[in-house]
Amino acid sequence: MIATVGRKAHFNAAHRLYRPDWSDARNESVFGKCNNPNYHGHNYELIAELTGPIDPETGYVFDIKHLSDLIEREVEARFDHKNLNLDCPEFAQLIPSAEHIAQVIWNLLRPHLPINLQLKITLYETPRNFVVYKGEQTH
Amino acid sequence: MIATVGRKAHFNAAHRLYRPDWSDARNESVFGKCNNPNYHGHNYELIAELTGPIDPETGYVFDIKHLSDLIEREVEARFDHKNLNLDCPEFAQLIPSAEHIAQVIWNLLRPHLPINLQLKITLYETPRNFVVYKGEQTH
Amino acid sequence: MIATVGRKAHFNAAHRLYRPDWSDARNESVFGKCNNPNYHGHNYELIAELTGPIDPETGYVFDIKHLSDLIEREVEARFDHKNLNLDCPEFAQLIPSAEHIAQVIWNLLRPHLPINLQLKITLYETPRNFVVYKGEQTH
Amino acid sequence: MIATVGRKAHFNAAHRLYRPDWSDARNESVFGKCNNPNYHGHNYELIAELTGPIDPETGYVFDIKHLSDLIEREVEARFDHKNLNLDCPEFAQLIPSAEHIAQVIWNLLRPHLPINLQLKITLYETPRNFVVYKGEQTH
Amino acid sequence: MIATVGRKAHFNAAHRLYRPDWSDARNESVFGKCNNPNYHGHNYELIAELTGPIDPETGYVFDIKHLSDLIEREVEARFDHKNLNLDCPEFAQLIPSAEHIAQVIWNLLRPHLPINLQLKITLYETPRNFVVYKGEQTH
Amino acid sequence: MIATVGRKAHFNAAHRLYRPDWSDARNESVFGKCNNPNYHGHNYELIAELTGPIDPETGYVFDIKHLSDLIEREVEARFDHKNLNLDCPEFAQLIPSAEHIAQVIWNLLRPHLPINLQLKITLYETPRNFVVYKGEQTH
Repeated sequence: MIATVGRKAHFNAAHRLYRPDWSDARNESVFGKCNNPNYHGHNYELIAELTGPIDPETGYVFDIKHLSDLIEREVEARFDHKNLNLDCPEFAQLIPSAEHIAQVIWNLLRPHLPINLQLKITLYETPRNFVVYKGEQTH
Repeated sequence: MIATVGRKAHFNAAHRLYRPDWSDARNESVFGKCNNPNYHGHNYELIAELTGPIDPETGYVFDIKHLSDLIEREVEARFDHKNLNLDCPEFAQLIPSAEHIAQVIWNLLRPHLPINLQLKITLYETPRNFVVYKGEQTH
Repeated sequence: MIATVGRKAHFNAAHRLYRPDWSDARNESVFGKCNNPNYHGHNYELIAELTGPIDPETGYVFDIKHLSDLIEREVEARFDHKNLNLDCPEFAQLIPSAEHIAQVIWNLLRPHLPINLQLKITLYETPRNFVVYKGEQTH
Repeated sequence: MIATVGRKAHFNAAHRLYRPDWSDARNESVFGKCNNPNYHGHNYELIAELTGPIDPETGYVFDIKHLSDLIEREVEARFDHKNLNLDCPEFAQLIPSAEHIAQVIWNLLRPHLPINLQLKITLYETPRNFVVYKGEQTH
Repeated sequence: MIATVGRKAHFNAAHRLYRPDWSDARNESVFGKCNNPNYHGHNYELIAELTGPIDPETGYVFDIKHLSDLIEREVEARFDHKNLNLDCPEFAQLIPSAEHIAQVIWNLLRPHLPINLQLKITLYETPRNFVVYKGEQTH
Repeated sequence: MIATVGRKAHFNAAHRLYRPDWSDARNESVFGKCNNPNYHGHNYELIAELTGPIDPETGYVFDIKHLSDLIEREVEARFDHKNLNLDCPEFAQLIPSAEHIAQVIWNLLRPHLPINLQLKITLYETPRNFVVYKGEQTH
């Protein structure tokens, strides 16, 4: 039988949405307040979900404690209390929009998870704004 | 790469579930307390989600500020602090069940959004009751 | 030892803020959207708190099940799925502002509770707006 | 048109993750703190979702009051304030992991629901850990 | 200037409300479902608040990291994934009602905190039931 | 009769806890991760509460719409999407700890509110950490 297990985690960080190859006016026009040169910040609420077969012996799809430890090591230790633009090489060439942060987190967790489990990342940037990324590509 | 962006919004309204072509007894039997002739009301929590490709230049699927403004103009301005049955022509011939309200909201937002983005509406009528509508039809 | 026990409950209702002895213009000016003649509505989240001595034999300040039953009988049965202005005699002469609703609920519950317990009512009209009433008077 | 209706419910229970055919060391290694011989417990938050066509006459996919009553009778009455391992025959031979509890709830509700509606169960074991079960099997 | 700092924490546990010096009938009558001999359980959400002067040099009333560590060591390590009646000597002679658990937590934390800070404990036993304890006595 | 009205609001910002008159080692020792030279950030959830007499004519302690507008103008416009240390003169000489931010907000709102209403500020820096400030001083 197939089920999903999910784990919520938390980190907070500063960021700025900005393209150095654009004029200030265009950055301001596209990114608005998120373009503040001195950065702003968020409490990011992360939900990682794994979908796959239930192991009949343990009743687990995946040990949620292992998932929690993995998120702590790969995501929280990397991004918590950081400036995503300045402190995190993952965003040196990548705008730290919520979509991109979710994609980066998916890429960080994916190699450490069993190949037969699907991974879905939901990231709340504020209590009212969120994104979802599942590693899917357009065709 | 494909991702989803979501935005939460809020409006409150009065409504009544009632069919004029039914007897009072049948209305009472089917709609129970929701059939109160003097109306009752809810704080509706709305979640609009858009799924499509991430624009590599901006890192956006869709600018969440635009989505927020669109919801404010098309949904909140129309339904907030209103009596759905009496004040809103959308429900003149349509029972304002949560399912129908979600469908109406989907129909109001859909024409203003890029054709390549899928739209999903989640509507909480109370903190414990909700509906989801994605524009899908039975085959 | 003194402690507080609290219980959350829920009801939803329609209402309108309006004074018949005022002109339409003044009602509109003071009550804004809340003055809609066709009513609007809310999910009211109620928190009732009782403060007093812990009974050393039971470990209870007050049996939370009794508090829950009392709220159901005195508040939910009276106001849930109702139009406060039209269906509820408590608001025949009293504007159903959140402050007044909290006061009415306090007055409904108070006589059924032990005299040595203090009662505090918190009422959320929306997830962002709330009031508190403790039966206090100005001096 | 197709929509989903969802209902949140609640029960609390004690449980223990443990296999009698394993050594204590292996139980401890696999299940960690969840293997406490004296049990521990949780407030389980349950979300049941039904997906299917909207009845154009009522505006309902399924009467949420009926769904709520069904959950109360089949799930809450069975598991609320119980020890899942000792009091509930459903878990006599089945480890009460969150995945298994969600599966059992799905199996309890499914026979009482119209065949054309899909059922999805989400179960929060803690505010940070949850599972989803939709009756799907691997191929 | 005086301010309050608060920290939320979490543990889950099994318990039973029961007095061995009472008959089964009386235990059942007073404690109802909470008297289940096989125990039931909860996710306890704990809020610890400290009130006192803001240190002008640090801007802190009390370092929230220290408060968080203290709660982890004194409360979570002691009660998380435990059976309060069987595993915790604090409740060997004390009914583990929410009121008493809050009182025990207050007594555990108090000696480790500066004397000039007031301590307030709020404990949610379920999302709808909670207690507050501040170390106050009747006069 | 006396009641309280409360309003929740939201802003997000970057900040850093740091004293230029301290060595790096002491800053690190006291402020830990919050001392990151490149800043980090939060979604700040603000609750403003006003306590005073209910106006019998309107049923209001204070028009919640006015309170909401005041918070938007005095707090959100000033701090939302800002770096508190670099963009906000209020924190040029004041460490932007949660306690100090709450105090600054209290001082910003107080002059615009009726003298007979008490003001209480609650500020969540993360979903688990918060502070309260009521303008009280030690004696």
